[in-house]
Amino acid sequence: MVDRDDVLTAAQRALNADPAASMTAVAEAAGISRATLHRHVDSREALLVELGTRSLDQWEQRLDDVDVEALAASDDADRIRAALEELVLGYVDDSDVFGFALTDQVILANAALEARTQVLADREAVLFAAAQSVGVLRTDLPARWFGHAIYGLLVSGRDAVRLGDVARRDLGRLVLSSLLTGIATP
Amino acid sequence: MVDRDDVLTAAQRALNADPAASMTAVAEAAGISRATLHRHVDSREALLVELGTRSLDQWEQRLDDVDVEALAASDDADRIRAALEELVLGYVDDSDVFGFALTDQVILANAALEARTQVLADREAVLFAAAQSVGVLRTDLPARWFGHAIYGLLVSGRDAVRLGDVARRDLGRLVLSSLLTGIATP
Repeated sequence: MVDRDDVLTAAQRALNADPAASMTAVAEAAGISRATLHRHVDSREALLVELGTRSLDQWEQRLDDVDVEALAASDDADRIRAALEELVLGYVDDSDVFGFALTDQVILANAALEARTQVLADREAVLFAAAQSVGVLRTDLPARWFGHAIYGLLVSGRDAVRLGDVARRDLGRLVLSSLLTGIATP
Repeated sequence: MVDRDDVLTAAQRALNADPAASMTAVAEAAGISRATLHRHVDSREALLVELGTRSLDQWEQRLDDVDVEALAASDDADRIRAALEELVLGYVDDSDVFGFALTDQVILANAALEARTQVLADREAVLFAAAQSVGVLRTDLPARWFGHAIYGLLVSGRDAVRLGDVARRDLGRLVLSSLLTGIATP
């Protein structure tokens, strides 16, 4: 008996491999019939929104795990730097699981998910501003840019691994190092 | 009389604003009827492939403009550094025009466009390898990673401007500076 969670996980894997996968292809990947898949989710859009919700749950969990508000209030540069690195490495792991959701148009266009994304981005921006004020992040870049820069490099990383240009094992270091110190020779 | 080029440009603008825009919405944005739009392009997929082709034409033009192969063979660090900066700033301008195409699933899944993307990425990778050998780019990162890193920051930049987090005017500098020297305080 395949439960709902198994179905969603299989769907996620199928969509990571082919973001345009149809419900038929998703059902096949989950080893169930199209009818069974439809008993779990009403439509392809409902499936995507559910997977988008899961990816935001995971993002929220990462922010809770580092206790982002307390951290931002701490004025402790070492702790803030360490937590930023932990967050980015965690996001890289998550983007391996939720890869397709990063750029899926249905997910990005969903108003409820967009509103929740904004709330999480706002929480993160407080941390970035604190990181600037304790000297961890550059003050000549806008605090709201950092979240976008991280997001972009997660998209980079997902694609680089998918196309075989970068080893999965190296990805966390590549993303973190490129993000923090850039790709030019110092 | 609206010509094909006007139609494609209007379609591009409509899809940048809403990547999920239907053919009806695209026709409306172009100020023509759905029937007229269909006289210019057979289907939504054909339209997307045509716009994807235009974005690759533009990428190819940028590589030709800096004469990427001659440059890579030049061993001239200053010229290579200047050309890299010119390329990235050019890509930022192009991503303003072709924004939605960066992450459109139909475009990315098209085999012909994917093959051509690979050819252009290969040309670029030769330049990155040369930039590493003359000391412009870090040698502890794989040459094939740089193109992905640039691509990701173009996605970042497009989204940051679309969401109003960054001014369009600042974007070239933000992307280039984040790419080359990172977001951490040196």
